[in-house]
Amino acid sequence: MSQPVITSARFFVGRTGDGLISFGSGQPDLPPPRAVFDILPHYSAFKYGLTQGQENLREALSKQYPHASPEQFVITNGASEALDLSLRVLARFHGAKRCLIPRPYYYSYPFNVEFAPMGVEYYDLKDGKIDLDHFLEQMKKADVVLINSPSNPTGAVQDIPVLKEIERLTQEKNLWVISDEVYKDLIYDRDNYLIQGERVITINSFSKTYAMCGYRVGYLYGRQSDFIDMVVEMKNHTSMNTNILGQEMAYTATCVPMDEINKQVAVWRERRDTIYDGMKALGLDLWKPEGAFYVFPKMKDSTRVVNELYYKHNMITYDGAWFGAPDRVRFSYALEVSKILEGLERLEGYLKKNPGVVSG
Amino acid sequence: MSQPVITSARFFVGRTGDGLISFGSGQPDLPPPRAVFDILPHYSAFKYGLTQGQENLREALSKQYPHASPEQFVITNGASEALDLSLRVLARFHGAKRCLIPRPYYYSYPFNVEFAPMGVEYYDLKDGKIDLDHFLEQMKKADVVLINSPSNPTGAVQDIPVLKEIERLTQEKNLWVISDEVYKDLIYDRDNYLIQGERVITINSFSKTYAMCGYRVGYLYGRQSDFIDMVVEMKNHTSMNTNILGQEMAYTATCVPMDEINKQVAVWRERRDTIYDGMKALGLDLWKPEGAFYVFPKMKDSTRVVNELYYKHNMITYDGAWFGAPDRVRFSYALEVSKILEGLERLEGYLKKNPGVVSG
Repeated sequence: MSQPVITSARFFVGRTGDGLISFGSGQPDLPPPRAVFDILPHYSAFKYGLTQGQENLREALSKQYPHASPEQFVITNGASEALDLSLRVLARFHGAKRCLIPRPYYYSYPFNVEFAPMGVEYYDLKDGKIDLDHFLEQMKKADVVLINSPSNPTGAVQDIPVLKEIERLTQEKNLWVISDEVYKDLIYDRDNYLIQGERVITINSFSKTYAMCGYRVGYLYGRQSDFIDMVVEMKNHTSMNTNILGQEMAYTATCVPMDEINKQVAVWRERRDTIYDGMKALGLDLWKPEGAFYVFPKMKDSTRVVNELYYKHNMITYDGAWFGAPDRVRFSYALEVSKILEGLERLEGYLKKNPGVVSG
Repeated sequence: MSQPVITSARFFVGRTGDGLISFGSGQPDLPPPRAVFDILPHYSAFKYGLTQGQENLREALSKQYPHASPEQFVITNGASEALDLSLRVLARFHGAKRCLIPRPYYYSYPFNVEFAPMGVEYYDLKDGKIDLDHFLEQMKKADVVLINSPSNPTGAVQDIPVLKEIERLTQEKNLWVISDEVYKDLIYDRDNYLIQGERVITINSFSKTYAMCGYRVGYLYGRQSDFIDMVVEMKNHTSMNTNILGQEMAYTATCVPMDEINKQVAVWRERRDTIYDGMKALGLDLWKPEGAFYVFPKMKDSTRVVNELYYKHNMITYDGAWFGAPDRVRFSYALEVSKILEGLERLEGYLKKNPGVVSG
């Protein structure tokens, strides 16, 4: 039987099997806070909710952002819908024609921009970081700028002075900024900086901080009331309210003390150190992730590597080509340290037979 | 204090108050089957589900359609997302430029078509029914045809020979048909006919049959595997899986014997007869609904009527203008018979003072 070539992450959907180690999907393995399940036995609502999102949830979220108010939030079907709606509204009602996104990028970004529809422009990251001169040059081509810090797939957190400079210049030039901050609570070494401004749209979700991926609760936050109105109007036609029970579970999650959530960061840090140190010891070229849960080592001929690691070593990894970086492979480390160590051993075996994979 | 003029259904969101009678929102007041809540206490999943939809749910749905298979279904955030995705995929990947929709229409249709983006064409219904000659003339302008039977806002069910003729001609001419059948289980007097074919996309939801509006579980069913693939690919970027718990509740609903669901039709029929007979007695010009839960009487100057009924008689009704019928008013009869009777009394009082509203 011939083995199909793996050309997208969808290939791995539903793949399980004896001894398979998955560094693939970007979702927490640690469960949501117990409290979110405690509300289930007594839940009985069934009617439509508000298209903009339930009031208790928006009220709770508004307290997490300085000077924010509940009417500045829209609850969405995950960060994905928040991004889709934002881009569609900017394209349709604000005349936006081109959107600037980072490269490497989260693999949906180019599709989201094209579906809006808008044209895609890129700013290339240097070892995961924004090169401000290059960014400002590229910025001239766009009406909308997308920032993703901490980043999937790079694990990089952008430097605060750079983000502040981007914040200043984009607002000065009346550009829209979409700031995808779904990993904002998963930072290891320092604070992140959250971009603010009149034309800033902040996107977040309950998938990473609270491990509620399957429930698809995300949101966008923006200060311009006409933008928010148009998002609600569009969502009213394209999906209506986000699942009311998912929203109530998300509200319950916001009531859990942040200390409890932050305890998990220690778990993630141990995993990060394990995989980063292990890969460095194997001679791989990578930077140390400051946030999220991905490492992104250089590997020559990444498509071949991903195929061989799966078919010969029973490991799932994601081809950097899917993220605009064909010389890298993404490893999600959302799994136990023992499995990370086992995966590193298999990787060592593979690299010994294929030393050319490690870039010089 | 001046009273704002009511210009859209959004005005009524969250309006409650002493003695308010709402003939507004189109959602069942009878709750979902008890079984869908019984699964909640033991539910603990949290990871991403399949973007296409959970296998048990698609398997169950495939048994409801002749010769269907689970891979021909995509589970969506309500029928709204099913329609949005269908139109976007047809516009983007199948080159569809113009979509033909009924008039009067469900108020989202023109927006959905324009957001796809496609141009909107209309076929005018005669007393709620399709006029085949006119339909065939209009059909020449479109690549995609939308059918909605039973219909919101008209309550009409299209005649079977007409639907069969449309089925035959659209497939012969390689047009795509989107058949919105969300009210298919709410028919009073006879069977509906479900349009079938290679280029037919059937849209349905758990909102009406199972009263699960707030949970936003809908689906589309289509035979062309490349169309389904593109829908899944697009949804993968725009919202990912539909809420996993909503899907499990929907699956549980499919396990409830249809007899139990159909018992509710008797409740709806009594309500329909009450409001239809009551309105006829008031001299209103309307047809008897064969499905769904709306009556759509003729009323001159509908915008004024809707405003006066709300501000002077504490009743919510929807302006026909929002549905492309400015000489009619929509009354949803998803409420108890006693309230319907109370509403009819208020309406009688209003019409006595405003006899010109009833068209001659």
